[in-house]
Amino acid sequence: MTKRAVILVSGGLDSATTLAIAKGQGYSCYALSFDYGQRHRCELQAAVKLVQRMGVAEHKILPLDLAGIAGSALTDLSVAVPQQPAEGIPVTYVPARNTVFLSLALGWAEVLGAFDIFIGVNAVDYSGYPDCRPEFIQAFEKMANLATRLGVEQQPFKIRTPLINLSKAEIIKQGIALGVDYGLTVSCYDPDEEGKACGVCDSCRFRAAGFKAAGIKDPTRYR
Amino acid sequence: MTKRAVILVSGGLDSATTLAIAKGQGYSCYALSFDYGQRHRCELQAAVKLVQRMGVAEHKILPLDLAGIAGSALTDLSVAVPQQPAEGIPVTYVPARNTVFLSLALGWAEVLGAFDIFIGVNAVDYSGYPDCRPEFIQAFEKMANLATRLGVEQQPFKIRTPLINLSKAEIIKQGIALGVDYGLTVSCYDPDEEGKACGVCDSCRFRAAGFKAAGIKDPTRYR
Repeated sequence: MTKRAVILVSGGLDSATTLAIAKGQGYSCYALSFDYGQRHRCELQAAVKLVQRMGVAEHKILPLDLAGIAGSALTDLSVAVPQQPAEGIPVTYVPARNTVFLSLALGWAEVLGAFDIFIGVNAVDYSGYPDCRPEFIQAFEKMANLATRLGVEQQPFKIRTPLINLSKAEIIKQGIALGVDYGLTVSCYDPDEEGKACGVCDSCRFRAAGFKAAGIKDPTRYR
Repeated sequence: MTKRAVILVSGGLDSATTLAIAKGQGYSCYALSFDYGQRHRCELQAAVKLVQRMGVAEHKILPLDLAGIAGSALTDLSVAVPQQPAEGIPVTYVPARNTVFLSLALGWAEVLGAFDIFIGVNAVDYSGYPDCRPEFIQAFEKMANLATRLGVEQQPFKIRTPLINLSKAEIIKQGIALGVDYGLTVSCYDPDEEGKACGVCDSCRFRAAGFKAAGIKDPTRYR
């Protein structure tokens, strides 16, 4: 049987590249997205289009009430998205987001017998989020193998982070080589209803600089 | 300001006792329950009644689509609840359940500035669930303090497991001393619509034996 993997797919540049890498490594891919009260539906729509274009064994979209626990500019409409870089962990940080996403991915992975879970976190352009660092990923993996029936009884789960040490330009070059259509992806923290990017938030800036450094024409749709 | 704590409250005997202990320690208690496709609504109804009776600062019930990732007799109606003890991790195990519950509790705790998270896991009568063991709890706590802004920048989160080394009889004695009305709690894996217990599943057996060993009249409503 082809090895199965669960891939967290947000609809952004990093997760699209991560999915392409997992597919390139021969995994049967189970894409997992969350409907968690993102500011705009276009991010989820991008995930659906990407996954359809790239092809996966299954795409699951789980509803998740992160807005119910609130506290971030990405889910709380009363917090403004900043347009200038700031020191420390930014207001766009969603409390425990990657922990929650990986936990649900782990549950699904256990049901599927998929021992590889891919997440497109990045520690270079990580924007100050604590849950994008390698030490977090290692601690999660260790916890996961104490938490689960399969991890305890069969073989360890692995959290795969193929982008963790890459620059944005390196990520883009790898994705282009694997045929990713970045025109489909949405990275902006504050896109308009059609998915057009603001061009000024942290995420837009990292992305634009990445295309420039990679020497690749930026396919992002700006408003 | 009174110290805040998030308490996972399922509506069962263990979480009711855990809430009573947290209240007894002087915390301002934020109760968190999940609507995750349990077999019967009476478990959540028990949580609501318990929390109203005992008094908390807030009770949040988060919807959670664990049935969407399926695979357990507790959420999947096509898997029968066993009526005899079996070797190893039982079919009533829900994949990564405590990991998911604790992750969402962590997110809410970070929003509240609550550094203590209480969960009523028990390693004595733990019924073979890997995510009830002390080594899991320790690994989760370590991960949590790498995952979160407050854990990194302010002070560590603590996962409090006051029942972890107690027998069911000891748990019951402690809860009775704190005034818990166990008649309100539902522990059965397969209760009827009124919350009446089957008396034969693992959870019912542990509970009944606990009351007997504690020398306390069993207030459970059996059908």
